[in-house]
Amino acid sequence: MKIVFLGTGGSWPSPERNVSAIAVKRNAEVLLFDCGEGTQRQLMHSTVSFMQISKIFITHFHGDHFLGLAGLIQSMSMNKRDSPLEIYGPDGCEILIESMTNLGHYSTTYPIVARDVKPGDIIEFEDYKVRVAEAQHTVPALMYSLEENSRPGKFDKPKALELGIPEGKFFSQLQQGKTIEHDGKTFTPDMVLGSPRPGRKIVYTGDTKPCDAIVELAKDCDVLIHDSTTALDLQEKSNSYGHSSSAQAAQAAKDAAAVKLFLTHISPRYDETEQMLADAIAIFENSEVAEDFTEYEVKYKNGEI
Amino acid sequence: MKIVFLGTGGSWPSPERNVSAIAVKRNAEVLLFDCGEGTQRQLMHSTVSFMQISKIFITHFHGDHFLGLAGLIQSMSMNKRDSPLEIYGPDGCEILIESMTNLGHYSTTYPIVARDVKPGDIIEFEDYKVRVAEAQHTVPALMYSLEENSRPGKFDKPKALELGIPEGKFFSQLQQGKTIEHDGKTFTPDMVLGSPRPGRKIVYTGDTKPCDAIVELAKDCDVLIHDSTTALDLQEKSNSYGHSSSAQAAQAAKDAAAVKLFLTHISPRYDETEQMLADAIAIFENSEVAEDFTEYEVKYKNGEI
Repeated sequence: MKIVFLGTGGSWPSPERNVSAIAVKRNAEVLLFDCGEGTQRQLMHSTVSFMQISKIFITHFHGDHFLGLAGLIQSMSMNKRDSPLEIYGPDGCEILIESMTNLGHYSTTYPIVARDVKPGDIIEFEDYKVRVAEAQHTVPALMYSLEENSRPGKFDKPKALELGIPEGKFFSQLQQGKTIEHDGKTFTPDMVLGSPRPGRKIVYTGDTKPCDAIVELAKDCDVLIHDSTTALDLQEKSNSYGHSSSAQAAQAAKDAAAVKLFLTHISPRYDETEQMLADAIAIFENSEVAEDFTEYEVKYKNGEI
Repeated sequence: MKIVFLGTGGSWPSPERNVSAIAVKRNAEVLLFDCGEGTQRQLMHSTVSFMQISKIFITHFHGDHFLGLAGLIQSMSMNKRDSPLEIYGPDGCEILIESMTNLGHYSTTYPIVARDVKPGDIIEFEDYKVRVAEAQHTVPALMYSLEENSRPGKFDKPKALELGIPEGKFFSQLQQGKTIEHDGKTFTPDMVLGSPRPGRKIVYTGDTKPCDAIVELAKDCDVLIHDSTTALDLQEKSNSYGHSSSAQAAQAAKDAAAVKLFLTHISPRYDETEQMLADAIAIFENSEVAEDFTEYEVKYKNGEI
């Protein structure tokens, strides 16, 4: 599972940073979190194919987080997409997508399924879920946690052979969690499988000032992607606009025992981010300022990829 | 008067070309023709300040020509603009701008004056006008001709002195076209001014297949900016989608006796434009393929800037 930052700037684009968008490549699919103006072109400059996007999650309806939807949706049509596109967002998402796809002369070649979600929702997919929590911003805003389901424990082959189970289909059935019968005996998966191995977890706060819900949502996550609009120098101002400083992001990462912190939504007022990063590292060492096109491979906690 | 190309690609953006937008810098103001997604960021990479834009002219409501409006309008607000912004476009412009500015949480700090215009309209400004004509595209589409008013003829100082007019305020009054009385005699401006000198003229076709209205609108223009979606190889396909080949653009420039031709709205299928340019030059020598950030100083026909 790989995170590709497509836009790491706050409020409006700068020559260095486009507005918010983060892609997560997972197996054959791409999930997109936020979609500021110009995201489709950022995708074209990146290693992610915009045609692979299956689901989009919007944190809130400030322009720098969603205005790229219309162009992206349209370009997918012009490139003859036929598979459905799911779009999730706060209250009003469905109506907004309807309005956006009715701007100008325009029709889609594929179904768009837009859905309003609310804090507390858990959106279940085949082998992962997306948990929704409430951010503290100036308008209704959501945070998302992408959580992979646990994988079955490791298969203990010597143990299975010792128990007299022959190699072959029985092994794979047990690995899939099925109970088997052989030679009049019953073998259950727990006899040959280690404990289930936890999936990976990525949490994205969108725009928010500090709040307890962040720490709760991000508990033990592998990556926390956190609003870091300013450095400590402008923390008070940042909070008054419903944003966080990098130090506050780092405190959340520390309190949640996250593995890695990415700082994003950097205000265009910052030409350089050294101080912002230093403020964060003083609190949580594994902090990094996301740049446009930064890529990060999310490992399992045991080091596997 | 300077033309700055901000987006020269057709349909969807490519790494090399953003979608349609052309800025014209004229004295202290900037006019923008079309505003595809990402135009605000292109402006930030260019020599044009997005806060100087006073008027925007949209040719038609295909996404690649107008989806950048919402973000641009919003960023102007965040940068505390207070002067009005005028937006002109085909039928439905006013409603569309209303819809766009109602997407998400959003308010403007300045008045937006949106106005539907139609073929045949002449929009008069202080010292120039914009003439509107009908393009031949797949949806209602307009072409625009920016025409500066004529400047007064050159002041003939020796002649004025010979006539006995004293230097000073009388000179400037005559230059401003006023009749004066001196020493009991009446002096009219035509006695000391040469013939009026024509202003400059820029014509932008937007998306269109060839039609007589282009040649009529572009008659004797200084710059024709013409749809050139394809080279000759795909001319038929281009026309069937309401677009032109570079050769057809060149024929229009020749028939209109234009001074200079810029080819734009280049299809993303073309990695290189050598053949496209060669097709045009074979018909009209002063042809150039516009690139993103190409700048062109529009001279008066007598060579003055």
